[in-house]
Amino acid sequence: MTVVQEFLKANENYAASFHKGDLPMPPARKVAILTCMDARIDPARALGLEEGDAHVVRNAGGRASDDAIRSLIISEQLLGTGTVVVIHHTDCGMLTFSNEDLRQKLQGEFHTSADDIDFLPFKDLEQSVREDIATLKNSPFIPDTISISGFIYDVHSGKLLPVS
Amino acid sequence: MTVVQEFLKANENYAASFHKGDLPMPPARKVAILTCMDARIDPARALGLEEGDAHVVRNAGGRASDDAIRSLIISEQLLGTGTVVVIHHTDCGMLTFSNEDLRQKLQGEFHTSADDIDFLPFKDLEQSVREDIATLKNSPFIPDTISISGFIYDVHSGKLLPVS
Repeated sequence: MTVVQEFLKANENYAASFHKGDLPMPPARKVAILTCMDARIDPARALGLEEGDAHVVRNAGGRASDDAIRSLIISEQLLGTGTVVVIHHTDCGMLTFSNEDLRQKLQGEFHTSADDIDFLPFKDLEQSVREDIATLKNSPFIPDTISISGFIYDVHSGKLLPVS
Repeated sequence: MTVVQEFLKANENYAASFHKGDLPMPPARKVAILTCMDARIDPARALGLEEGDAHVVRNAGGRASDDAIRSLIISEQLLGTGTVVVIHHTDCGMLTFSNEDLRQKLQGEFHTSADDIDFLPFKDLEQSVREDIATLKNSPFIPDTISISGFIYDVHSGKLLPVS
């Protein structure tokens, strides 16, 4: 069975006992989470989310990229969220490479320059959270009324640690 | 209690019984999911994912944005995934507005032009999945060896429906 076939099989079971078909579009808990795509993070289990509770934006690193800001503007302006929680995590892949490393690998494999792509790696975990919070706060479209806080998720303990 | 305090409380319970501290960084099932930030979607429950199984990239619409491609390149090139599953969903917020609508709202509220932001809304759900698959396949950094398929998640039934 391919992984896609496995997903369809698992989804049959999920749908068979699904009873949340009447949830509204706006998140019930008025919050958006911005975190990493890392496979070891399950935001719902780790934070106690039920379907319908929160927007979850994920990318490599949990970075406040232009696209994350696009998503958060939609979340806040059209769907009423007022809190953003930025969560980076220990042992993140983004700590393990530089733009130069990855660009060189891509050039070698695809014979095409990736020099115009910033892959947004970082060297300091707490600093990356602070930087991303600052980026969000500096967006002209994210007003001061939006509460923004930052955390590091420890993939070894399952614990969420505040970044001040 | 604020929603952040609720998350910390829920996380205490999660961490107290956490026993998955030794998972490796690369996703065990070698798959990356690209889906919408919508609060009603819980990819782990809906697809049968455990911590460590899959990269999960999420943004407004589950679009194949430049940032999603950045994340997928890292997923594939540095962390060994070979399958991408694109999942859009019924009743998506992206079906309910146009760029012009949102830009006008932002201009009115913040007195700053958002004309250079494409919010990536769409009018046809199946078509948006097909477009995003095509965008990924056309990336010079996503080779033909990566398997890409598309689905629509029905938020009313919990069911995953293939898009061909």
